[in-house]
Amino acid sequence: MAEMQPSYAAVDWGTSSFRLWLVDRDGRVVAERRSDEGMVAAGKIGFAAVLESHLGALGAPADLPVAVCGMAGARQGWKEAGYVYTPAPLGAILQGAIRIPDLGRDVSILPGVAQRNRGAPDVIRGEETQLLGALGEAPKDDALVCMPGTHSKWVSVSGGRIERFRTFMTGELFDAIRRHTILSHAVAGADAARDAASFRSAVQDVHERPALATNRLFQARAGSLLFNDPPTTARECISGTLIGLELAGGLSDRTSSSEVILIASGPLADLYGSALAALSVPHKMIDADGAALSGLSLAARRFWAR
Amino acid sequence: MAEMQPSYAAVDWGTSSFRLWLVDRDGRVVAERRSDEGMVAAGKIGFAAVLESHLGALGAPADLPVAVCGMAGARQGWKEAGYVYTPAPLGAILQGAIRIPDLGRDVSILPGVAQRNRGAPDVIRGEETQLLGALGEAPKDDALVCMPGTHSKWVSVSGGRIERFRTFMTGELFDAIRRHTILSHAVAGADAARDAASFRSAVQDVHERPALATNRLFQARAGSLLFNDPPTTARECISGTLIGLELAGGLSDRTSSSEVILIASGPLADLYGSALAALSVPHKMIDADGAALSGLSLAARRFWAR
Repeated sequence: MAEMQPSYAAVDWGTSSFRLWLVDRDGRVVAERRSDEGMVAAGKIGFAAVLESHLGALGAPADLPVAVCGMAGARQGWKEAGYVYTPAPLGAILQGAIRIPDLGRDVSILPGVAQRNRGAPDVIRGEETQLLGALGEAPKDDALVCMPGTHSKWVSVSGGRIERFRTFMTGELFDAIRRHTILSHAVAGADAARDAASFRSAVQDVHERPALATNRLFQARAGSLLFNDPPTTARECISGTLIGLELAGGLSDRTSSSEVILIASGPLADLYGSALAALSVPHKMIDADGAALSGLSLAARRFWAR
Repeated sequence: MAEMQPSYAAVDWGTSSFRLWLVDRDGRVVAERRSDEGMVAAGKIGFAAVLESHLGALGAPADLPVAVCGMAGARQGWKEAGYVYTPAPLGAILQGAIRIPDLGRDVSILPGVAQRNRGAPDVIRGEETQLLGALGEAPKDDALVCMPGTHSKWVSVSGGRIERFRTFMTGELFDAIRRHTILSHAVAGADAARDAASFRSAVQDVHERPALATNRLFQARAGSLLFNDPPTTARECISGTLIGLELAGGLSDRTSSSEVILIASGPLADLYGSALAALSVPHKMIDADGAALSGLSLAARRFWAR
């Protein structure tokens, strides 16, 4: 059927994940693929080969254009897409796209965003496209946007521009701490069920006294030794401490006029949503997967009038 | 010569290190041994065998008594020496010692200190003996004592009692972060030379805004990407951030009457000394190795009137 014909492909290419959507001219997703052929794996296999194998598996036309965001545009990726520098209008992300030369199809990669500030250097690659998808090219309202993950990003948007942003290493620290420190003993055997009270208490404590963060972490061990606290409690203590510390830092950039927007999916949406609720911070939630696709679609429509 | 005869042995037995001194009746060290047969290794070889092999190598008499502190007294150690609970007079540490039964010689292990407080559970094992050695059994002045390490300890002493204390996971986080996160790339190849300005700047920034600690850590990567900062700068950024965060937390317990005392040796004495200087915090420095020996000697004189 003609309506099922894809108009473009959208690819979110992370460090360790690959996600592709085929989208028709009405903006409907007609097919979708996920794999773990992220930048690291694709660097060995070849980026073009990975992309073509997924497009081929879906029977995509040979001339279907592809909009890409994420680590494929890093220096160690397919081809460096550089950075847009803050402060930057959101629309500048579209203008900074680069095209992979000498391919049978048009593959365009969106740039990252960099804060080239000696006092607060920072970089984003991938989340800028979620931001574009969630807010559009020219948002009128001020916003403070939180995009949680391995490296959480907090972006201050004002007058349609990315004014500044901060990366917090929350997710990566959580992994390093529970795997490679003495707290690994305290969390061993933790089950999937949540301990919401312990999580909330850690979030609130650390938000109030962020300087005690690494002391609060050690309580996961001391509680286990002195009170036989179960491993699930220890895990929630670590998770709540790191997220509480991030929120204390991220929310310090909030102005009276800015709405707090959380762009997240799955378990992170739950965790950060309940952490913000524990601090009584009103916020709007936007699905991260949908935001990435929206941002790529916005780029595709602009690049190829589709 | 009669003066060279040891009166007792003192052993500081950590998780991964073993240190033994033979001391004569005038308090002089007549022999010394170090090895990596800490609790973990000794747990396999046998604690008695490790101790006797070192004493034998020094020709120590078969009835020489031995005062021990540290992880040998942990539940996973030689024999559990339990805890003294806060608030506790410093002298209570001596009263809580246990004796290993059925040995040819008197081997006594000092207990740890625990804060059995649901809101702030915490444990110390080993540093309490340094504290005793540095301050004596009945210190008159109030003090806030910092003992940096894998798990740094900050102890509030008032009226001769350990009122409360906090553990900060600074050293262990430093290792986990530089080995097991993306910052490992930024620090690869760092040399031994210091970059005092980067360290000081991180200490001051994080002391002022502790909520931004994990954002400040990420600047080690962003500075490397955007400004080609060398690996030594990245390492100092990480080290200064974690120590600055600890100081912000530890110093929050300071009262107007309490002197800040730093008990440290070697590179940690330099790092923490310069971090406190960067914050213009006056402090007294006491050598940690000497403090552990002093504490064990105080115990030996009390136990055996030697």
